Amino acid sequence: MKTADAYSRLVARLKRIHTIYTVADVLVWDEQVNLPPGGADRRAEQNAVMAELQHREASDPVLGELLGELEADQGPLDGDQRVVLRQARRDYDRAVRLPAEFVREKAELSSRAFHAWAEARPRSDFAAFAPHLERHVELARREAGYLGWGERPYDYLIDQHDPGMSAELIGRLFGRLKEELVPFAHAVVASPVKPDTAFLRGFDVEAQRKLALEVTAALGFDYRRGRLDVSLHPFCSGTGPDIRMTTRFDADNPLDSLFSAIHESGHGMYEQGLPEEHAGTALAMAAGMGAHESQSRLWENQVARSRGFWSHFEPRLREVFRRELGWISSESLYLAVNAVAPTLIRVDSDEVTYNLHILLRFELERRLFSGDLAVQDLPRAWKQASKDLLGLEPESDREGVLQDVHWSGGAFGYFPSYCIGNMLAAQLWYKLVDQHPDLEARFAEGDFTQVLGWLRREVHAQGRRYDVLELTRRATGAELSPEPLMRYLRERYGPLYL
Amino acid sequence: MKTADAYSRLVARLKRIHTIYTVADVLVWDEQVNLPPGGADRRAEQNAVMAELQHREASDPVLGELLGELEADQGPLDGDQRVVLRQARRDYDRAVRLPAEFVREKAELSSRAFHAWAEARPRSDFAAFAPHLERHVELARREAGYLGWGERPYDYLIDQHDPGMSAELIGRLFGRLKEELVPFAHAVVASPVKPDTAFLRGFDVEAQRKLALEVTAALGFDYRRGRLDVSLHPFCSGTGPDIRMTTRFDADNPLDSLFSAIHESGHGMYEQGLPEEHAGTALAMAAGMGAHESQSRLWENQVARSRGFWSHFEPRLREVFRRELGWISSESLYLAVNAVAPTLIRVDSDEVTYNLHILLRFELERRLFSGDLAVQDLPRAWKQASKDLLGLEPESDREGVLQDVHWSGGAFGYFPSYCIGNMLAAQLWYKLVDQHPDLEARFAEGDFTQVLGWLRREVHAQGRRYDVLELTRRATGAELSPEPLMRYLRERYGPLYL
Repeated sequence: MKTADAYSRLVARLKRIHTIYTVADVLVWDEQVNLPPGGADRRAEQNAVMAELQHREASDPVLGELLGELEADQGPLDGDQRVVLRQARRDYDRAVRLPAEFVREKAELSSRAFHAWAEARPRSDFAAFAPHLERHVELARREAGYLGWGERPYDYLIDQHDPGMSAELIGRLFGRLKEELVPFAHAVVASPVKPDTAFLRGFDVEAQRKLALEVTAALGFDYRRGRLDVSLHPFCSGTGPDIRMTTRFDADNPLDSLFSAIHESGHGMYEQGLPEEHAGTALAMAAGMGAHESQSRLWENQVARSRGFWSHFEPRLREVFRRELGWISSESLYLAVNAVAPTLIRVDSDEVTYNLHILLRFELERRLFSGDLAVQDLPRAWKQASKDLLGLEPESDREGVLQDVHWSGGAFGYFPSYCIGNMLAAQLWYKLVDQHPDLEARFAEGDFTQVLGWLRREVHAQGRRYDVLELTRRATGAELSPEPLMRYLRERYGPLYL
Repeated sequence: MKTADAYSRLVARLKRIHTIYTVADVLVWDEQVNLPPGGADRRAEQNAVMAELQHREASDPVLGELLGELEADQGPLDGDQRVVLRQARRDYDRAVRLPAEFVREKAELSSRAFHAWAEARPRSDFAAFAPHLERHVELARREAGYLGWGERPYDYLIDQHDPGMSAELIGRLFGRLKEELVPFAHAVVASPVKPDTAFLRGFDVEAQRKLALEVTAALGFDYRRGRLDVSLHPFCSGTGPDIRMTTRFDADNPLDSLFSAIHESGHGMYEQGLPEEHAGTALAMAAGMGAHESQSRLWENQVARSRGFWSHFEPRLREVFRRELGWISSESLYLAVNAVAPTLIRVDSDEVTYNLHILLRFELERRLFSGDLAVQDLPRAWKQASKDLLGLEPESDREGVLQDVHWSGGAFGYFPSYCIGNMLAAQLWYKLVDQHPDLEARFAEGDFTQVLGWLRREVHAQGRRYDVLELTRRATGAELSPEPLMRYLRERYGPLYL
């Protein structure tokens, strides 16, 4: 009785903290989508105050007492309640160990660094961004120290994104992947088959927007509980009943906008599938960023680059873009959808070479935090690694070290999640195909419910009960591995290119 | 030294409270402009938590101690600092004297009453709304009591919107206005000149949007510090560097969207002109709702319905709407812009008969709070007053007492601000014209800088130093009066209709 009461009070507090978080989240979305340039300083101030208010609630000593009380008497708690308690402890410790002043400093730096990055990138002016990045590295080290990870700052950062993972484990997985992926990617790139993408020009933007909404709704994204807008860099924010996704539209790059929208809707469907009645607790949290990315990538790649998907949507595309697609054969279109061509820009890259971009970033981050690499030396190190992995060397930092937004927010240890997600997506996919042999045949009929239904049950409904390694075991019956990803890439791209 | 320090601490607290307010304000804008339907409950929760967080900061006893300390030793404070202190006291008292239970009760009632009103209006079912309205009147009386205005509840309500005003003073001003306006309005309405508005059909909405942005930017709204979006009902929110205006676009009502945008940009330019370095203090607050409305109305009416304005923008309009305006003469267009036709609905009315709607509401509210009129007798009283003032009697309460949203939120004493704003707008206008005899000639050249420059100095830069009466005296050298409004209406509409 006493425990049940304490547990209810814990959940009420977690929900309140979550509500404050969701307000801060609206501000972040609004900043990328709507904010007039003159409002940047004000927004930095707002973000800082919201972070502080959230921190105050999250570090309230009464919450600490509640946690202590429940931890001392866990007998009456069931398994789910213990999951909630464990995550609440993790978050509480994080909140109380980070000084309010530090939290405020980091939020302000992130907002300013974002604007500095947005200005520095088009000018390839790494020097203008470097001081912000140095401050971020310094703050990240301090943060790891506060949380008791002083000796392993990069592991701390990875754990923030993917609980259960470490630099050492990622290094091993990525090492195995690299061994097979580099020769495979080089073979595909060297293939005499060269997709024609020259016809992807002058696609009406308003028609692209309508199609993106139509396709993502058909896959299962619920637009009564979300929306799709435009921003410089596509992203998905929001939770539960209010998911805010973005993409970007370019008349001369229609596949980018479509696949970005599908990718973000994969994230969005994960969030929409988390049980809203448990909002604010671990039962309604994603398992981690790797798990999140597995959802976006599975829809974007395994589903939306499949023959089944295109046999359903190609006629619709030809209806919408009659003029633009008039003389293009089905096979040319499908090859363009699965075009492989190494590029300097991660977000523009195909799914074969994409993972090479992640290996690059993981290695640089790892060296940055081991002390092996200084911020000022990043541009050079980037160029070298790019040449080694991709066979391409950026001429400017705009196409190199300045290309991604992540570091401007101090989000180190985030990039590996993309590749973890790619590995998991392929692993989930083969399990799904095992259980639903008619999967692609159903795609061809416009039916994607088997995918969403299975993911809802095996991934979304699980919340944060398990870390990504355990989630993988439970959903697929095997350890997380790069093998399914390599199998998938060979099966998808081998017949097209080799 | 001690006082200077206390004053700095006061300002820091006021800025923090203001920042929390601005976050809540973004949520309100987002709710009207972006929120997916499924997000409504979540947003209600977010709003409630933000209101609570704001109230906690605004009623912090430490703030009360600071105020007491400064009030006891005002010697070292200059005039501006005393203005800040006085307003801070006013806001603090309001925050601490309203019991939390009362605030919750009023918020709950407002929510229930809004839904009751929204259901009752289309059915003209005043009886279903009346109990909520009675409760609102009762709560308003209690609220006045808490704040020490127990004997004069309606004056309290007016003072909330327009500090310095009272029912007695408004009664005198409106009485003088009524005497001249009623016969003038009836004469205009009876004129054989009937504007043709039938051609205002089928105006491309995207072109309307571009034109609204172009015109409001030309008037002086700074889009680096604000934006214009679409909502069901136009409004202006935001402060300082981030003003969020909305309008609505209807292919068959192009002047409504244009004048709504101009109206809201008048509010927006006021907010953009408040000194941002003093954000959160009285020095960066509008003088009141009447003063605010004077800004929106001056741009919408005195400026944008003038011959000078149209001689500049008509060619541009004809360029954008070549097909739609092809055969319409300049004089027909100008008459359509200044069409007068009495209507039962306030928000649809022209600027001549608009004020009659306000006189009606003021008289009814005054009698409601003097005890002279019971809520149940409102519909009959409304119909009678409508017949007397407008010459039109609503057949149903939908077109009468149920037409406005204001009372469902307990916003009594708000309506008079609209007419105070109209009077002040005309009074400011004639002072401006006095000092800048070439004003309209410059409009014809597309130059509106004299207006904005003068308003910036005489109104915007003043913040809340003076109440609307003193602001009027200082800016125009005369007492607030209905004479300039009547002069303006005669000069604008006499030549067209009489």
